[in-house]
Amino acid sequence: MNSDIMEIMEGVKNGTISTEDAVLMLKKEPFVDIGYASVDMHRNIRQGTAEVIYGAGKSVGQMEGIIDTMQKNGQKNILITRLSVDAYEALSRRFDIKYNKDGCIATIGDIPAPDGIGKIVIATAGTSDIKVAEEAYITASFLGNEVVRIYDVGVSGIHRLFAHLDDIMSASVVIAIAGMEGALASVIGGLCDCPVIAVPTSVGYGASFEGLSALLSMLNSCASGVAVVNIDNGFGAAYSASMINHMR
Amino acid sequence: MNSDIMEIMEGVKNGTISTEDAVLMLKKEPFVDIGYASVDMHRNIRQGTAEVIYGAGKSVGQMEGIIDTMQKNGQKNILITRLSVDAYEALSRRFDIKYNKDGCIATIGDIPAPDGIGKIVIATAGTSDIKVAEEAYITASFLGNEVVRIYDVGVSGIHRLFAHLDDIMSASVVIAIAGMEGALASVIGGLCDCPVIAVPTSVGYGASFEGLSALLSMLNSCASGVAVVNIDNGFGAAYSASMINHMR
Amino acid sequence: MNSDIMEIMEGVKNGTISTEDAVLMLKKEPFVDIGYASVDMHRNIRQGTAEVIYGAGKSVGQMEGIIDTMQKNGQKNILITRLSVDAYEALSRRFDIKYNKDGCIATIGDIPAPDGIGKIVIATAGTSDIKVAEEAYITASFLGNEVVRIYDVGVSGIHRLFAHLDDIMSASVVIAIAGMEGALASVIGGLCDCPVIAVPTSVGYGASFEGLSALLSMLNSCASGVAVVNIDNGFGAAYSASMINHMR
Amino acid sequence: MNSDIMEIMEGVKNGTISTEDAVLMLKKEPFVDIGYASVDMHRNIRQGTAEVIYGAGKSVGQMEGIIDTMQKNGQKNILITRLSVDAYEALSRRFDIKYNKDGCIATIGDIPAPDGIGKIVIATAGTSDIKVAEEAYITASFLGNEVVRIYDVGVSGIHRLFAHLDDIMSASVVIAIAGMEGALASVIGGLCDCPVIAVPTSVGYGASFEGLSALLSMLNSCASGVAVVNIDNGFGAAYSASMINHMR
Amino acid sequence: MNSDIMEIMEGVKNGTISTEDAVLMLKKEPFVDIGYASVDMHRNIRQGTAEVIYGAGKSVGQMEGIIDTMQKNGQKNILITRLSVDAYEALSRRFDIKYNKDGCIATIGDIPAPDGIGKIVIATAGTSDIKVAEEAYITASFLGNEVVRIYDVGVSGIHRLFAHLDDIMSASVVIAIAGMEGALASVIGGLCDCPVIAVPTSVGYGASFEGLSALLSMLNSCASGVAVVNIDNGFGAAYSASMINHMR
Amino acid sequence: MNSDIMEIMEGVKNGTISTEDAVLMLKKEPFVDIGYASVDMHRNIRQGTAEVIYGAGKSVGQMEGIIDTMQKNGQKNILITRLSVDAYEALSRRFDIKYNKDGCIATIGDIPAPDGIGKIVIATAGTSDIKVAEEAYITASFLGNEVVRIYDVGVSGIHRLFAHLDDIMSASVVIAIAGMEGALASVIGGLCDCPVIAVPTSVGYGASFEGLSALLSMLNSCASGVAVVNIDNGFGAAYSASMINHMR
Amino acid sequence: MNSDIMEIMEGVKNGTISTEDAVLMLKKEPFVDIGYASVDMHRNIRQGTAEVIYGAGKSVGQMEGIIDTMQKNGQKNILITRLSVDAYEALSRRFDIKYNKDGCIATIGDIPAPDGIGKIVIATAGTSDIKVAEEAYITASFLGNEVVRIYDVGVSGIHRLFAHLDDIMSASVVIAIAGMEGALASVIGGLCDCPVIAVPTSVGYGASFEGLSALLSMLNSCASGVAVVNIDNGFGAAYSASMINHMR
Amino acid sequence: MNSDIMEIMEGVKNGTISTEDAVLMLKKEPFVDIGYASVDMHRNIRQGTAEVIYGAGKSVGQMEGIIDTMQKNGQKNILITRLSVDAYEALSRRFDIKYNKDGCIATIGDIPAPDGIGKIVIATAGTSDIKVAEEAYITASFLGNEVVRIYDVGVSGIHRLFAHLDDIMSASVVIAIAGMEGALASVIGGLCDCPVIAVPTSVGYGASFEGLSALLSMLNSCASGVAVVNIDNGFGAAYSASMINHMR
Repeated sequence: MNSDIMEIMEGVKNGTISTEDAVLMLKKEPFVDIGYASVDMHRNIRQGTAEVIYGAGKSVGQMEGIIDTMQKNGQKNILITRLSVDAYEALSRRFDIKYNKDGCIATIGDIPAPDGIGKIVIATAGTSDIKVAEEAYITASFLGNEVVRIYDVGVSGIHRLFAHLDDIMSASVVIAIAGMEGALASVIGGLCDCPVIAVPTSVGYGASFEGLSALLSMLNSCASGVAVVNIDNGFGAAYSASMINHMR
Repeated sequence: MNSDIMEIMEGVKNGTISTEDAVLMLKKEPFVDIGYASVDMHRNIRQGTAEVIYGAGKSVGQMEGIIDTMQKNGQKNILITRLSVDAYEALSRRFDIKYNKDGCIATIGDIPAPDGIGKIVIATAGTSDIKVAEEAYITASFLGNEVVRIYDVGVSGIHRLFAHLDDIMSASVVIAIAGMEGALASVIGGLCDCPVIAVPTSVGYGASFEGLSALLSMLNSCASGVAVVNIDNGFGAAYSASMINHMR
Repeated sequence: MNSDIMEIMEGVKNGTISTEDAVLMLKKEPFVDIGYASVDMHRNIRQGTAEVIYGAGKSVGQMEGIIDTMQKNGQKNILITRLSVDAYEALSRRFDIKYNKDGCIATIGDIPAPDGIGKIVIATAGTSDIKVAEEAYITASFLGNEVVRIYDVGVSGIHRLFAHLDDIMSASVVIAIAGMEGALASVIGGLCDCPVIAVPTSVGYGASFEGLSALLSMLNSCASGVAVVNIDNGFGAAYSASMINHMR
Repeated sequence: MNSDIMEIMEGVKNGTISTEDAVLMLKKEPFVDIGYASVDMHRNIRQGTAEVIYGAGKSVGQMEGIIDTMQKNGQKNILITRLSVDAYEALSRRFDIKYNKDGCIATIGDIPAPDGIGKIVIATAGTSDIKVAEEAYITASFLGNEVVRIYDVGVSGIHRLFAHLDDIMSASVVIAIAGMEGALASVIGGLCDCPVIAVPTSVGYGASFEGLSALLSMLNSCASGVAVVNIDNGFGAAYSASMINHMR
Repeated sequence: MNSDIMEIMEGVKNGTISTEDAVLMLKKEPFVDIGYASVDMHRNIRQGTAEVIYGAGKSVGQMEGIIDTMQKNGQKNILITRLSVDAYEALSRRFDIKYNKDGCIATIGDIPAPDGIGKIVIATAGTSDIKVAEEAYITASFLGNEVVRIYDVGVSGIHRLFAHLDDIMSASVVIAIAGMEGALASVIGGLCDCPVIAVPTSVGYGASFEGLSALLSMLNSCASGVAVVNIDNGFGAAYSASMINHMR
Repeated sequence: MNSDIMEIMEGVKNGTISTEDAVLMLKKEPFVDIGYASVDMHRNIRQGTAEVIYGAGKSVGQMEGIIDTMQKNGQKNILITRLSVDAYEALSRRFDIKYNKDGCIATIGDIPAPDGIGKIVIATAGTSDIKVAEEAYITASFLGNEVVRIYDVGVSGIHRLFAHLDDIMSASVVIAIAGMEGALASVIGGLCDCPVIAVPTSVGYGASFEGLSALLSMLNSCASGVAVVNIDNGFGAAYSASMINHMR
Repeated sequence: MNSDIMEIMEGVKNGTISTEDAVLMLKKEPFVDIGYASVDMHRNIRQGTAEVIYGAGKSVGQMEGIIDTMQKNGQKNILITRLSVDAYEALSRRFDIKYNKDGCIATIGDIPAPDGIGKIVIATAGTSDIKVAEEAYITASFLGNEVVRIYDVGVSGIHRLFAHLDDIMSASVVIAIAGMEGALASVIGGLCDCPVIAVPTSVGYGASFEGLSALLSMLNSCASGVAVVNIDNGFGAAYSASMINHMR
Repeated sequence: MNSDIMEIMEGVKNGTISTEDAVLMLKKEPFVDIGYASVDMHRNIRQGTAEVIYGAGKSVGQMEGIIDTMQKNGQKNILITRLSVDAYEALSRRFDIKYNKDGCIATIGDIPAPDGIGKIVIATAGTSDIKVAEEAYITASFLGNEVVRIYDVGVSGIHRLFAHLDDIMSASVVIAIAGMEGALASVIGGLCDCPVIAVPTSVGYGASFEGLSALLSMLNSCASGVAVVNIDNGFGAAYSASMINHMR
């Protein structure tokens, strides 16, 4: 960033950039304002990835506008989370879009070949957690990671988890996804020596209080190396895991 | 109970009991009123155990009065929970009382020989849960149970728990005691085929919210056969476990 | 379990089992992986009962797959909880399935003759709690228990409860089901000398906060011998009660 | 009130009251401002009772000032709630004050002879609730009510409560005081046909959450005729009960 | 109650009642068990009013059964709360039933002439609270009270409340109904010298948390003489108010 | 107000106003009672603005009645918040009404020319917060303010916010609208030296708990000069901002 | 700000500022780093006031260091909030410091003559709220405002509040401070036509939940023009009020 | 792990290990049981670090026992968290121990030279967050990381944070520590392209609810790449950060 400012300064000094232009350049927004959204064109460079569209609460028209703006600015790979089937079908008329129905998540463009350090393991406690897990799976794949999925290995039948010990112990990051009592994160955290990203889910009823139970469990994990993201936030977990798996 | 009423009725019919006395007998309180407390003398028969004194919030004088009344009515074995060291020392001047400092629990009279079906296993996740576990241990012993204690076997190092699998799998009841994320109850619940009484503890900080985290975890256990008592309620867990262990 | 390991060891020693096979056998999963669910085939032996399918959040297709796998592995008696009428009707086209509409619970195979110690009493505070009670009733019957149902005996008209004192006092376990203020568990806990499993329900409005009020009441019961399961968890209560009623 | 305004109007019309004085009279504060507190001198008339001093958080000096102002204005009977022993001792040097240590409540002046309709019954679930009950007892007595106290009759030993059925069924109002699960209010509400004022107390631990459990229970009472006051608010319950017991 | 027992005793003594019958009579349920509900036939006597049917969660068929049983037992006046329009229409085909649409409450039989001490004032803070107020209005009228309704007099325009001061100050009981910040109860509590029953409502959004805000406000009222019922519980408030208004 | 009373007094003194009329005038309600609502006709003068109709929970008929009453009393400019599309369409048949669909807010009459001190800046963190922002925008415009809208400038891409620094630093009041973590209020509060009204929104999922997360964040803002209104309360924020922007 | 950048650019262009220096100037921190705190020297200019020291959790040594740094940089007027008596006494040995014991707040330097638009009225519901009110009073005075204090005018005796109507209706801003049910803010908000800053306090017990009750009440105020700050945040309320009272 | 089992199998096959010994070896606990704690001797290998002692709630004697056991087993580097000054002083009599008073954290043995990928930046919002930050600092250093500390750079004065942009943008992991509104995590998350571990702290008062406010904020961060640990859990954040910084 300093070097950018230096260049501008040099330009001002050399007279190749006018004072007014320099002020403008220093203030120029690295994003395109399309009225209802500020589409961030620099994030690709700043954070090393394409913009992600959070589909929930956006109309099809708004999403089309955002995708158009992105594509005009040369962004080929776009991830759309929390996309309903209806919205997907509407978008599919105009764009070449792939949809994962379980995870309510879509991609435009190619999923790249994995270039991370190792593999990301995604483990779920139950079958009902799969919708969160698939959101994480598509996200992590889209961000260039090798992903191994291990579903329905909750702690009430711990031998099911142990059957996958090899995968878990050789992961570079584990994403542990569980609702109800959320104990999976602690057990996995105690078994492996890599970072664990825990995702509480809203799976359960009664005193699960929409995921609060699993959230508190995971925050209180007695295992070291466990960090937590928001309830049902499969995307966020995969994003963090990908960052970790791409450490320089 | 019917037989009691029947006997009274027969007495009325036979004239050996006056109408007025019958009414009185039907209403007669099976407890001694000592002003500040109703000391229950029939519970021994009705629930098959001696009265327990909940020491918290009672003055030494009040406890002395209750013990005196009990002893006058022939109750020899008395359990006092939540008893401070100071109160214990004051009581020990007048009564032959044994004190468990970790569990803040005392007994007057003899701990009987175990007469339950099998053994009760008390397992704790951490060292800090021991104070709750010892309350459960003394209570269960006092109520005539063989007890095995397994401490500091939390799920973050699950091999520690597995080293005690034999005890756990041969228990008639397991009391699983854990604070923080409370995952121990689910893991044990999945391993054994006997009832598990789970005790959340207030051990932890921050988002453990004084035991709420462990409580919600345990209530949401994905393992079947797990029932829960109040936070830090070692006594209640042991009482339930003893009832189960003494099934006719 | 030790004996299994011993056998494998003997086989290795005798040369009847190769080293590699032994490692495999020690690690071999005692369940069938059908992609979206790990169907547990050993639980029947390990916990003494057939697998239960938690129907909520599973598609008809997923449930069919699980039932098929179970039946192929010789499990004849299957319990499906939280099953909607629609899903029941879909399943009934392929399987010989019985449905309890109030309890949203279904059974495949025969309900066995009771083989427990005594009878389980299921008591509800109100008419609206019946849906939870019926889930408990079918579960307990399915697990081989004699069950007595006493409905609508809440504490605001305590004479209704007292009319059933004989049943309550001769139970081996009582399941006390109540929403709103949940006082039934404490009153029953004080009347009988057997374990009480309390089930808070989400019946009520306003400050019942979806069952939180009854849950906290039951956890704070001043009666000893009361343990609590999750809100509306009729299945879990019956499972625990059945374990207790089948104590060796 | 209308009559007061009418009188003032007549005075204005007749010239016995100047316009300015009339405005002043209409606005005149019916209280004495002593800087840190507005001592209400009309409440005696407006609400039919003397001013009550809420002692918590007031210095001895502040209370002395308030009492002095009251006495100068002719108020002889003063009730001071939430008064610490230390503050009581300080006040007793200047005033003729009687102190109830359990209830942390004091009175200056005479407790009047009962002039209510009938008697107020104060029932507590446990011994630890007595401090709230005594606050209610002194308040109700001070406000001219006959009071019957029934302590330690919680629902876990419901025969203890039944021994006092006569008192409860002949009360004009019952104040039901309970911590933990707070079931006493519902049981009493179902037994008697008079209004019940329920007082949740902070007695308990763990999931009682400082009285929240009892509060929610009482608000959700399935018995009709139960209204609730704040946690530990013995004074408020007695005040409401006294109003009811003095219905014209 | 004692006199009943006395009579039975005398009968036993005189031989007009057999011992077995006496036991039966002492245990005989004063209610009719119709399977899914215990219809309480003695409550009329015990609590001085007809049975009330809580319509929420009951099927039309269940309600028909309960009404039939009641009518067969001579109860002419029946109140049905939380009754949907659809259920009302179904019931109106068989019964002579009057329906208050705002309050979702119906009556069978006549509303009696008022026989209480004075009048009950029902005040609401806003227009949206009217549905709760009408439930209270019909209930109080049904129970024999003169009722005055004052709607939309919330504290943000306090002159609106003051225009009704005469009614409020001459009430025997005031029911103060408010959502949002619930301040109406405190203001009315400070103005009048009769008991106030406060009803928090779920009116509001955001931080009103479904009525929690108004509930806490009312419980913390700085005005004496305010007692609180459950959120949206217009029936319960009217029931308590009627009891108070009918003090002997 | 005093001058009004003075005038009435003078009238009484002079005999131009009868005593009875004076009492009436002093008590006369400055509002029109139309049964289900007290339409406040003096608020225009008392608070310097027209009455606002809170549309949520009111029927079209009720709103028509209120508008008719207002118009008959000479109020031309009416704001209707929380108005559904359906209700808008019904009202548009009778009234000349403009509707902002995003904000669910309508106006009858003209939006006046801005007469405030400076401009009000409305900033939102995301696109989903726009519905709350538009409610604030129409309200603030309706109340005579110049408004600048800056949408989708959340703190996760802080350069987007900085591109609008000039607007923010020259505002007379800023309304900061954000869901999720609600950090926008603190960042803006630290950047500008004018009052900030923060509006938490219910945008988010999981641990946002319907806006609780943003609400708590904003209340705990480490920036001085930030005050908070209810979740999603765009109207209230604009009302406060307009008051501030019209300081005398 | 633009003008600053322009000046730097001109300097670069003219050669009076080197490129490196320009970069430095653009990045230069407008604060002094003293290790444990970043003392902000530009805030005086940026936000128009001196730095405020939040005393809670800072050692006397840390505060001395911050004050020294401030004074060396020419700041004469310093406000220290949440300062204990002990810390005040320690600081008074080195600095000329004035202390308000009720508000736990101190000032160094002179309190300026009021230069705001009008007066700020600070009203409290009770005597116990005074500690928060005094924090607000000293802060508002320190920031150049005329302040009127009206204490102990809670809504349970609303005539006390009305006696101060003149002050309230002529205020430019009102700070309404109340614990318990927090109704004061709504009543004042309905009476006056200026902005109201509401401060919930932790005064109360039981269901006040440390100020939560008053906080929710104030956020749900049915009066328009009420904005809320954190519980017990007298400083923040005064800071916002001062900003409003100094509108250009 | 497989290789270990293979070796044992080979031994059994070869007869060098008896069957019984093999069973024992497979079950042998990789920890030393010292009664009150299971000291884990394999964690060093399994998780790549020395055992950490959580000092809170352990007596000096218990800690001495654990340290002795560790040292006897060859562990030289020991970290003790949550250690009080008193306990530190007691331990320092027997062990060569270094203590960080701000962080209440101690080390035995040498802090190794950094061997991580890059540097870990620890940033705090305020001065009061330093105690959590120092716990993180010592932990991260102890685990072989280069650490840069940036304290008191909260978002209310965002220029303070920007002065450290170079450090933040070149970090391999950032630990963002903040209480109150916790916005620091989101702002940093938006600025840098490395993983962010967010630590909410209990700093604040009122509606911060002991850290709940910051916790919810951080979980709802609109910035991608932010994962959260428990309130005040500086150790856990550093442990996760170190794992990430040591990715293979």
